Amino acid sequence: MSSPLVGVLGGMGPLATVDLLHKIIEETPASRDQDHVPVVAWNVPQIPDRQQALAGTGESPLPMLLHAVRQLNHLSVSHIVVPCNTAHHWFDALAEESYAPLIHIADATLHAITLPADAKKAPQKIGLIATHGTLNVGWYQQRFAAQLGAETVVPDEQEMTTLFVPGCYAVKRGELQHGGRLLDQLAARLVARGAERLVLACTEVPPALETVSSRWRDISIDPTRALAQACVRIWLQR
Amino acid sequence: MSSPLVGVLGGMGPLATVDLLHKIIEETPASRDQDHVPVVAWNVPQIPDRQQALAGTGESPLPMLLHAVRQLNHLSVSHIVVPCNTAHHWFDALAEESYAPLIHIADATLHAITLPADAKKAPQKIGLIATHGTLNVGWYQQRFAAQLGAETVVPDEQEMTTLFVPGCYAVKRGELQHGGRLLDQLAARLVARGAERLVLACTEVPPALETVSSRWRDISIDPTRALAQACVRIWLQR
Repeated sequence: MSSPLVGVLGGMGPLATVDLLHKIIEETPASRDQDHVPVVAWNVPQIPDRQQALAGTGESPLPMLLHAVRQLNHLSVSHIVVPCNTAHHWFDALAEESYAPLIHIADATLHAITLPADAKKAPQKIGLIATHGTLNVGWYQQRFAAQLGAETVVPDEQEMTTLFVPGCYAVKRGELQHGGRLLDQLAARLVARGAERLVLACTEVPPALETVSSRWRDISIDPTRALAQACVRIWLQR
Repeated sequence: MSSPLVGVLGGMGPLATVDLLHKIIEETPASRDQDHVPVVAWNVPQIPDRQQALAGTGESPLPMLLHAVRQLNHLSVSHIVVPCNTAHHWFDALAEESYAPLIHIADATLHAITLPADAKKAPQKIGLIATHGTLNVGWYQQRFAAQLGAETVVPDEQEMTTLFVPGCYAVKRGELQHGGRLLDQLAARLVARGAERLVLACTEVPPALETVSSRWRDISIDPTRALAQACVRIWLQR
């Protein structure tokens, strides 16, 4: 196999892409520039809104996503990752168009949950903190059931309305303390219902829990970091 | 003119590229994803060491830099920026190879110094904090003299040995407090010799001065941020 070159289909939003690039660097054992993962990032945010498209109120992002996949393939990338949970709605169509294999963010997350260090204690119940869009489509729940035999604990509608949504929008406004307190409460609710691990499948949640030094960080998994770890594995296994 | 697409020739090091991408986002007036600058970043750090090449002890990075320029041009980028001061040694050869124009980091810095808000008080003396390589090549000094009629105040050899070099290496080791104190002393020396503005042309310096809340931050210019501002101008003037 030729040398890896990770293609990042980004821009959704642009900061989530920068966050992934930063985490790839953090996760790489390196003592000099040349040890780091080679990456090409397509960080072009002029893609129709994914939430609106899914709600039937906006145009489809698929043509621009396919264009990005073709551009990354022109550069002979060896793999493609997409640092946006919602964009995975179009994963199959993108994978079909791409010569380079795509890595699914939920597969990367699953791998992070089943790391050897944790093998002795496979979780029976996994809490999932995510948008309505990600919760409804069921990728995470299906994988946890099929691969781990684990049940997924999700927020109920009242928790989405009073904790998740206002927590996320507080973070988007820069009010990380306030958002962190709400999301920390949501995490506590899922743990109270038996969740042994928490998957924070929305980019606002990890920084908010960090800000309030949430006690639930130790059992939490950040899918963006899991995706970064998948990129580093590809590079180290070359 | 077709829509801008900024190409970033990065990887030197990979974190400096991520820093530029982050500052492009910070500098953009945006209320939604689609308002942000479209960027493609070639963040491939497998480029021969620039310092060693300049010292005559390592192979030239030019062939790999030219390859990166060609790859970015394949994607029809409208402009190319290089978030690495040292790599600008090969600027002319890269500009000659590229269909898309390259923006020189020292030109972007010059623009930041001459922003309208500062026009009433054009500096007569500008302090320059940079590596030996950047100091010796003289891009900044030549531009300050030719465009502003300003003199450049640089560290003397003793200040390089006792303040700049140990300060930078402290930052590279993660000792930002210690590094910040040394670099803050260096800044004070240049100001004592008449510098009215300081150009921090080495990526270690801005975070170190930030850490120690240096009083000299207000008169300082970060060339990476100036390069980000140049990218944002291109986008807003489309």
